[in-house]
Amino acid sequence: MERLPSLLSPLSSFRSSVALRPTATAAVARFQIARASFGSSSQMEVEQFKFGPYKIDSKEVFYSTDLSYALVNLRPLLPAHVLVCPRREVKRFVDLTMEETSDLWISAQKIGRLLENYHKASSLTFAIQDGPQAGQTVPHVHIHIVPRKGGDFENNDEIYEAIDEKEKELKKTLDLDKERKDRSMEEMAKEADEYRKLFS
Amino acid sequence: MERLPSLLSPLSSFRSSVALRPTATAAVARFQIARASFGSSSQMEVEQFKFGPYKIDSKEVFYSTDLSYALVNLRPLLPAHVLVCPRREVKRFVDLTMEETSDLWISAQKIGRLLENYHKASSLTFAIQDGPQAGQTVPHVHIHIVPRKGGDFENNDEIYEAIDEKEKELKKTLDLDKERKDRSMEEMAKEADEYRKLFS
Repeated sequence: MERLPSLLSPLSSFRSSVALRPTATAAVARFQIARASFGSSSQMEVEQFKFGPYKIDSKEVFYSTDLSYALVNLRPLLPAHVLVCPRREVKRFVDLTMEETSDLWISAQKIGRLLENYHKASSLTFAIQDGPQAGQTVPHVHIHIVPRKGGDFENNDEIYEAIDEKEKELKKTLDLDKERKDRSMEEMAKEADEYRKLFS
Repeated sequence: MERLPSLLSPLSSFRSSVALRPTATAAVARFQIARASFGSSSQMEVEQFKFGPYKIDSKEVFYSTDLSYALVNLRPLLPAHVLVCPRREVKRFVDLTMEETSDLWISAQKIGRLLENYHKASSLTFAIQDGPQAGQTVPHVHIHIVPRKGGDFENNDEIYEAIDEKEKELKKTLDLDKERKDRSMEEMAKEADEYRKLFS
C-alpha cells in the first residue's frame, strides 16, 4: 500500500486545536513534516548529518526529511539493518519534540516497509536502546530496523544480542576513525544508492 | 520537562500543507491526537480494549487516548515493563495510519518518561517485534517499554531474551485463559491504578 500521496492530509485534523493556541504560529515556518529528500547521491552530498559527536558522510544516507534521516550500517547484522535518527542531536527519546517523534516513526514505518519488500523478508525488528543502561553507546537517538526472515537467527532473541554487540562496535569504530576493513565506503555508498531508489 | 501544555500547538505547522489537499477534511472529525483519558479506574471499566483476539480487562489499562492504550503486564520482566498498543486491531506496524503511528509513539514517549521517573530508572528499552519472524506472538502491534537501571541484567542483551520469552508466555496464558497463578488481577489492577495517577 502506497502511503505517500496521503502523507500530509490527515494531519489537518490538528487544525481545530490550533485556533486556541496563537503561540503555535511561530513553529509553522520551521516545521514541514516528511518533506522527504529523494534526490540523487550527488544532491545529498552537500547536506550535513551528525550522529552524536560524529559526522556522517552523506553517501551513507539513503533517506531524509527535514527532521529525520536514515543511514546504512558499517557492519549490518543482517541485510538492510539500518538506523533512523532525528537530524537534531538529541540523546534521549523523551528529548524529541512531538513533531520529531512523529516524523521519526513515520519515516521508520516507511523505510521498514520498503526494505522488507526489497529484501523479501516477512517481519521487522524495531528497537531503541534509550540511554546507557539500555545499551546505547552513541548519545544520539537511533532506531535499529532489521528486516527478518524465517530462520535468519536460530533463536529470535539472538537478533537483540547481535544489535547490542553492533552498537558497541559502532561506537568503537567511530571513535577510532580507523580504516574500515569490514565494509568500504564504496560498498556502503552502493547500498545507500540502491535504497535511495526505493523512495523515488 | 512537562510536555503536555504544548501538546497540540506545534502541530499547527501542518496547516500550510493542508490547504493544498481538500480531501484531508474527511479525516478531521475522526482524529484527535492524545485526547488522553485520565479517568479513574471506575470510569475506565466501561471501555472495551482488544489485544488481537483477546479482550483486555480495563483494570489492566492505565493510559488511553482515542487511538492508543497502555496496559500492565501479566508477568513483567522488570518493574513497569508495560505494553502500548493501538486501539484498532492491527497486525503489522505498517498497517497503522500516520495518526495512529504518531499517537502510539507520542504515548510511548510520555509513558516511558513517567515510568522511568516513577521507578527511579535511568534508561528505557523500546521494542516492537513486528511479525512472526521477529518474535511476535499476538497479532496486534505492541511496543514493549522497559525502564532500565544499571545492573538490572548482567548483560544488556538478556533483556531482549527476556522480552522474547515473555512474548511467548503472554500468548500461552491468554490462549489458555487459565488461573493466573503468577499475578492476580487484583495485583495488576493495583499497579495500573498507581500508574494511572501519574497521568492525572
